[in-house]
Amino acid sequence: MEVWEALKNRKSMRVFEDRAIDEEIKEQLYAAAMEAPSAGNQLLYSIIEVRDEEKRKLLAETCDQQYWILKAPLIVVFVADHRRWCDLYRAAGCTPRKPGLGDAWLAMSDANIAAQNMVIAAESFGLGSCYIGDIIEQHERVKEALCLPDEVFPACMLVIGHPSEQQKQRKKPARFHRDYIVHTDVYHTMEPQVHQHFFEERALRNETPVVDFPAQVEAFWKRKYESVFSREMNRSARAYLAAFAEETEEEKR
Amino acid sequence: MEVWEALKNRKSMRVFEDRAIDEEIKEQLYAAAMEAPSAGNQLLYSIIEVRDEEKRKLLAETCDQQYWILKAPLIVVFVADHRRWCDLYRAAGCTPRKPGLGDAWLAMSDANIAAQNMVIAAESFGLGSCYIGDIIEQHERVKEALCLPDEVFPACMLVIGHPSEQQKQRKKPARFHRDYIVHTDVYHTMEPQVHQHFFEERALRNETPVVDFPAQVEAFWKRKYESVFSREMNRSARAYLAAFAEETEEEKR
Repeated sequence: MEVWEALKNRKSMRVFEDRAIDEEIKEQLYAAAMEAPSAGNQLLYSIIEVRDEEKRKLLAETCDQQYWILKAPLIVVFVADHRRWCDLYRAAGCTPRKPGLGDAWLAMSDANIAAQNMVIAAESFGLGSCYIGDIIEQHERVKEALCLPDEVFPACMLVIGHPSEQQKQRKKPARFHRDYIVHTDVYHTMEPQVHQHFFEERALRNETPVVDFPAQVEAFWKRKYESVFSREMNRSARAYLAAFAEETEEEKR
Repeated sequence: MEVWEALKNRKSMRVFEDRAIDEEIKEQLYAAAMEAPSAGNQLLYSIIEVRDEEKRKLLAETCDQQYWILKAPLIVVFVADHRRWCDLYRAAGCTPRKPGLGDAWLAMSDANIAAQNMVIAAESFGLGSCYIGDIIEQHERVKEALCLPDEVFPACMLVIGHPSEQQKQRKKPARFHRDYIVHTDVYHTMEPQVHQHFFEERALRNETPVVDFPAQVEAFWKRKYESVFSREMNRSARAYLAAFAEETEEEKR
């Protein structure tokens, strides 16, 4: 498949056929992820393939009770990982400092960049994929189930499988207009009517014209931003990152 | 270009020919980024194209004095952006809460995932690209130069251009063996000799066999992890994320 076609057509798929992913294809997905750019070629992540039925159920539950993901033949969690390098440093006799928030940040970036390579590779093999942002939630239960050490935390999760015919036919939702996203030189804030314009412009291209701007935005706001899962995400994210956010003794001096 | 070829061959390029990127191609790069998966189709990022010479120089300086990036015809900063949605909510009469760390996390993910789509698209157009992780550094100066509001912060930066012949010929560094990266069901820590094995195995495939394991790892440790830039990255990351990390009044109750 051509690159542009894969990037343009790829959309989230959430219903899968009941069949496994060929082992050879799966290995290609891992290879694609690992070929992604990475800070200093460190690959500051690990990939956990979750096969165990109990653990899959637990993740479906902790990820905002999305039990549909259990039908996905492949569930992978990309974890930001400074533990491996710290252990490697120690194996060579070094005494590494505790990783900080900048280190955590680089590792999260590495993990998401690698995950996106896997997503594009999956598309080229005719497989469907979906990111599950809710993996950030319920820190305590996820950490225990996946046996994550303190220096390791989930950056993102992917579910992958053969998409149903209905999913393949579903129209990809249009994105915002590029003028709403791309700025030159500095970040420009925008007037209320500009926001309304770009919101409505996208809706038109999605063939769902906005009939009541305040009500429709409010409904989205309540579902996405004022939701229980969103607040849990903030709490859990704070718990994951607390260990990285401490000032070191050296910095305090 | 075929997807697999693009994913497999893409490597960082740091020397560019002195010529601009065609405007049409540039627009395709933005389109590719925006077609990437995004939580709830929100595109929780903005893309700032930095053209102004003074600002480009400032970024080269704040990004650990990497003046080579000034030769790149295209410098783009992907900023994690909850400001746009909060403004949109307000335009519709809602009163959004302050974004928290989970919100910041989702936005960073969206930004990196979009950036990787741009990188793959660039590869397919014969363009070279490089992530500049150092954009996390020097919070105060970057924030001021790009006029970033509090809810907006750089997630990653890309430089893109026509690569020099030497860069095209350079061998892509081999990645670690998949068994060092891919785990099943739980995260497995490894014994010191396992770390040494995988470090040496990678070096062999890079045709640079390890002759002194402790010395070579220590040199890398000092250059990457015990470096001045790494400590600055941790400080600056903490400053960026502090505003998102506060517990809300509601959570304290």
